[in-house]
Amino acid sequence: MRYKVKMMYDGSNYYGWQVQPREISIQETIQEVLSRMHNHPIVIVGSGRTDSGVHALSQVFHFDSDMKLNCDQWRKSMNRQFPEDLFVLSVEVADPEWHARFDAIRKCYEYRINTGQYDPFNVRRVLQLEGELDIDRMRQAMQIFVGTHDFTSFCTNRSEITIDQVRTIYKFNLIQEGQLLRFVIEGDGFMRYMVRMLIGVVIEAGQHKLTLIKIQAMLEAKSKTVNKHVAKACGLYLVDVFYKEESSQ
Amino acid sequence: MRYKVKMMYDGSNYYGWQVQPREISIQETIQEVLSRMHNHPIVIVGSGRTDSGVHALSQVFHFDSDMKLNCDQWRKSMNRQFPEDLFVLSVEVADPEWHARFDAIRKCYEYRINTGQYDPFNVRRVLQLEGELDIDRMRQAMQIFVGTHDFTSFCTNRSEITIDQVRTIYKFNLIQEGQLLRFVIEGDGFMRYMVRMLIGVVIEAGQHKLTLIKIQAMLEAKSKTVNKHVAKACGLYLVDVFYKEESSQ
Repeated sequence: MRYKVKMMYDGSNYYGWQVQPREISIQETIQEVLSRMHNHPIVIVGSGRTDSGVHALSQVFHFDSDMKLNCDQWRKSMNRQFPEDLFVLSVEVADPEWHARFDAIRKCYEYRINTGQYDPFNVRRVLQLEGELDIDRMRQAMQIFVGTHDFTSFCTNRSEITIDQVRTIYKFNLIQEGQLLRFVIEGDGFMRYMVRMLIGVVIEAGQHKLTLIKIQAMLEAKSKTVNKHVAKACGLYLVDVFYKEESSQ
Repeated sequence: MRYKVKMMYDGSNYYGWQVQPREISIQETIQEVLSRMHNHPIVIVGSGRTDSGVHALSQVFHFDSDMKLNCDQWRKSMNRQFPEDLFVLSVEVADPEWHARFDAIRKCYEYRINTGQYDPFNVRRVLQLEGELDIDRMRQAMQIFVGTHDFTSFCTNRSEITIDQVRTIYKFNLIQEGQLLRFVIEGDGFMRYMVRMLIGVVIEAGQHKLTLIKIQAMLEAKSKTVNKHVAKACGLYLVDVFYKEESSQ
């Protein structure tokens, strides 16, 4: 039986989602619990990686099991055994062909910036930023990225082989809640560091360090050397993963 | 020169305020920074202790120094050198006779309970509580404690020598913010575990495990053996310390 699991995590204490040779990852932490339950190794498949220190309000993974537990028992059993910073929201039976990564058609991320007084309670859960930000200018910069573009200038692919860097951003909104800025971005897929690079550039726009014309030129350059602005991991949350036959929020 | 310092801290990673022989405390962390700056040992005096895992939105301490820094320089210098979970809000010059502990006349604490979905981001910053709570019943229980009472039944004094356990609670309010319950309690002083014991009893009242008559009897018993309910440290915040010639909020 294949199961689809939705979960939240505080990524502060992990070296990201993906199993690492020497560091503790979220994937490995989950696999250890499931493997112990099954008495044999279980490999889970996430919708995608999140980097070290990045959080999730709803990450999705799948795994296969022949254990006789219903979905509610799976959820409770995992939550009992997981560390306190991981939390399973739901478990569903999936089609045996269904795939958490390949079937994802859309993802939503949020990036949080605290522009008010330094908050020692949320250092690893929000980017602390001092100084004035031009909100209108940031919104204008965000609009440059909406639509279908080649985002070569705003990703690092490391050893991954990808056919192309063309992605579609469906929306890129800024919600102001007092001193908290919440940037919500939704697209058909995001390459490594892509969200953090876009946010980095938007911040520079808000600080009047980059003009809109320059940002437009950076996008059009399709070059890995034009952008140096990567916002810190702590502010980033994977908010949702959408699949076929599910509607976007 | 004597300085009065107001600060915030996330207590999650400390064994409380007071210097411990083998564990890391907030007081020691601060003293190490100040002693390094002075090239000789500096001892600070807090308004009182907070226990392991307890937080502060505004703790107060004093220290003496002959270094030629103004208040703003002190604040910035400490914030540059303190770990990320400590934050100095303000530094003022105090009278040389002024004392952060002895001159405190009133303190305010807050206790936070999340009654909604488990929140993996705030496990150490809020008490997670499942199940129904009778809010009206909790408010009635809280009113039992308002006023001047002998709180022997709701403290542990360990090795401290105190003349008596009579304290005055000026207010004890419950603020509901969605699924978050914020209990605000203000009094002329609180003994060890006193706030957490009062909250523990209020929770039991809300769960219909203790009647108001029983709680009243516990208070009147003035006995250290009648109460077993101590709410976890993670939900507790020292909110403010008031001194003579300062008005309460």
